[in-house]
Amino acid sequence: MYIVILAGGSGTRFWPLSRKSTPKQLMSVFGGKSMLQRTVERVLPLRPQRVLVVTNALQAAETRAQLEYLEGVPVDVIEEPVGRNTAPAIGLAASIIARFDPDGVMAVLPADHYILDEERFREVLEEGEKVAQTGVLVTLGITPTRPETGFGYIEALPQEGGGARSVVRFVEKPTLERALEFLQTGRFFWNSGMFIWQACTILDQISTLMPELSRSLARLAFERDVWELADLKPQIAEIYNEIRGESIDFGVMERAIGVQVIPASFGWSDVGSWSALPEVMEADEAGHVVIEGVGTVSVASSNCLGYARGKVVAFVGVQDLVVVDTPDALLVCAKDSAQDVKKVVEELEKNGRTDLL
Amino acid sequence: MYIVILAGGSGTRFWPLSRKSTPKQLMSVFGGKSMLQRTVERVLPLRPQRVLVVTNALQAAETRAQLEYLEGVPVDVIEEPVGRNTAPAIGLAASIIARFDPDGVMAVLPADHYILDEERFREVLEEGEKVAQTGVLVTLGITPTRPETGFGYIEALPQEGGGARSVVRFVEKPTLERALEFLQTGRFFWNSGMFIWQACTILDQISTLMPELSRSLARLAFERDVWELADLKPQIAEIYNEIRGESIDFGVMERAIGVQVIPASFGWSDVGSWSALPEVMEADEAGHVVIEGVGTVSVASSNCLGYARGKVVAFVGVQDLVVVDTPDALLVCAKDSAQDVKKVVEELEKNGRTDLL
Repeated sequence: MYIVILAGGSGTRFWPLSRKSTPKQLMSVFGGKSMLQRTVERVLPLRPQRVLVVTNALQAAETRAQLEYLEGVPVDVIEEPVGRNTAPAIGLAASIIARFDPDGVMAVLPADHYILDEERFREVLEEGEKVAQTGVLVTLGITPTRPETGFGYIEALPQEGGGARSVVRFVEKPTLERALEFLQTGRFFWNSGMFIWQACTILDQISTLMPELSRSLARLAFERDVWELADLKPQIAEIYNEIRGESIDFGVMERAIGVQVIPASFGWSDVGSWSALPEVMEADEAGHVVIEGVGTVSVASSNCLGYARGKVVAFVGVQDLVVVDTPDALLVCAKDSAQDVKKVVEELEKNGRTDLL
Repeated sequence: MYIVILAGGSGTRFWPLSRKSTPKQLMSVFGGKSMLQRTVERVLPLRPQRVLVVTNALQAAETRAQLEYLEGVPVDVIEEPVGRNTAPAIGLAASIIARFDPDGVMAVLPADHYILDEERFREVLEEGEKVAQTGVLVTLGITPTRPETGFGYIEALPQEGGGARSVVRFVEKPTLERALEFLQTGRFFWNSGMFIWQACTILDQISTLMPELSRSLARLAFERDVWELADLKPQIAEIYNEIRGESIDFGVMERAIGVQVIPASFGWSDVGSWSALPEVMEADEAGHVVIEGVGTVSVASSNCLGYARGKVVAFVGVQDLVVVDTPDALLVCAKDSAQDVKKVVEELEKNGRTDLL
């Protein structure tokens, strides 16, 4: 199996810890390894043939540096000159893999997701690999644990037992009322953004459903039959100049026929904002999670999240706050406003404070 | 006039910025000069004969260092081996002054108060000096601007016009209902902890009302007739070993006869906790006050106080918070819980985190 890791996200919602040059996937938000490093290490027991990490120019150096320590697995970093959403990134990776191994199965994984049960995760990937070898598009659908309104959903045909199911349709983020209905039917899954397919299968689908992108990608010419992706940089730059940004969901998945979804419940979070961290980290008895700190004092406080490297964090009379301390910026945020952290980034950009972005 | 500055406070309510070795009066919380330095500079235009700063052993070195830059005014630092509240500190200073100038008028001023109109403040001190020269105890009473329940009050006899008034009684911190009544009568003033009297006057009163303290202080023997207070250290240590802690309010003021209060309204705050700072500092249009920061971003937030040296502070969806960042500790506190910051200090003490105190 080939592993394609999408690592080009800009992650403004984790400001001030995430910056343009160190977005969420390059952060060691849980202490220790970064989310990208964890994503790669998570698949290594599957002995993948290659790991392709797609990122952008701004993050390429740090991405390479973070992957240098890996041994025994060939890792390639593919550098996009500019972000064009997921369809071009996946198409580019598929084009490269297909050049060497058209029938090769590739698993597409975001670099910034949290997975609790890694063993189960790998079993699901192997299950998906088998289904993908039959020439269909496979997506992983997370069995929902709450009526979440922040994710897209996948509706599948009802089926007894486990295993892959036929996808009926992809559904945009629902209202709470609809999300509750989805939860009750047992036929809806969270769209995880993780996919498994043969390189030739997705390229065929792109050819049918995104012909412009397909034509651009077809111009990718390999000089020789070795993995030397650095040589491709000028060609990739040219291709990216002419293609439009599009997500693989909208460009292919929502319109393709015969998509299969594998229900998965390995403990998953897309860690979409600061407020998602308490889901995946252990809280103390007052419900606080303090990351990288050296102690917590809580006086009449509960359910706060703190990030403060090497500091004691004291909460007094406060609830449901996020406090993030970095050397040049301090964020204080209500948990239910965590999505609005990106507005701070916009404000700083407007004020020319690029040093803080 | 002699100026006696009480600078031995421990100021746990400004943790984590204030520490045992740098309490509030030694902090430069408004940027620039410390509160002690401002307190001394504030009286210099009065050309005081001497300035006596009473502090404790832990803070003596930093106190001396902070006062070194002053020229043209003799400043003595009197080092208490241990804090014994205000009566011994004032008695000690009075004993020293009386040794050289028994009729000398001394103004007793806390080192950690904020005063807006310094010119008016000096006028009030000069007015108090004249009254004190008649041999009575004079206290400054702040004309209340709100029904504050956190201060003690002084009731004075009604009187037309300005000038000193006879004190009827001292009143403990009132309920809100009583504080409202006080405000309406126009006869009540906030007990500021600022006093003016001749050295011999207060020593007479201590002799009558606090005979034990008086006897201990009487043992202070001067070897020679010059200001060489360092020589007194062993004697002070002995005296402090045997005396009990007591406030000058309880020990003398509340029981003395013929006390005069001078109504004062020069813009005053005892800066009793973090939440008092916005009273004395200018807020931005969202009501935030950020000290030592390099910028503020506010998204759906209002009325927060931030202390973050060299950092941008971003508030998102929060109101009425206090956030204080220091190199080893981060405080997040609801404004109306600012008094509870001392509980954090107690908790750290209990856990043996003396490095943070």
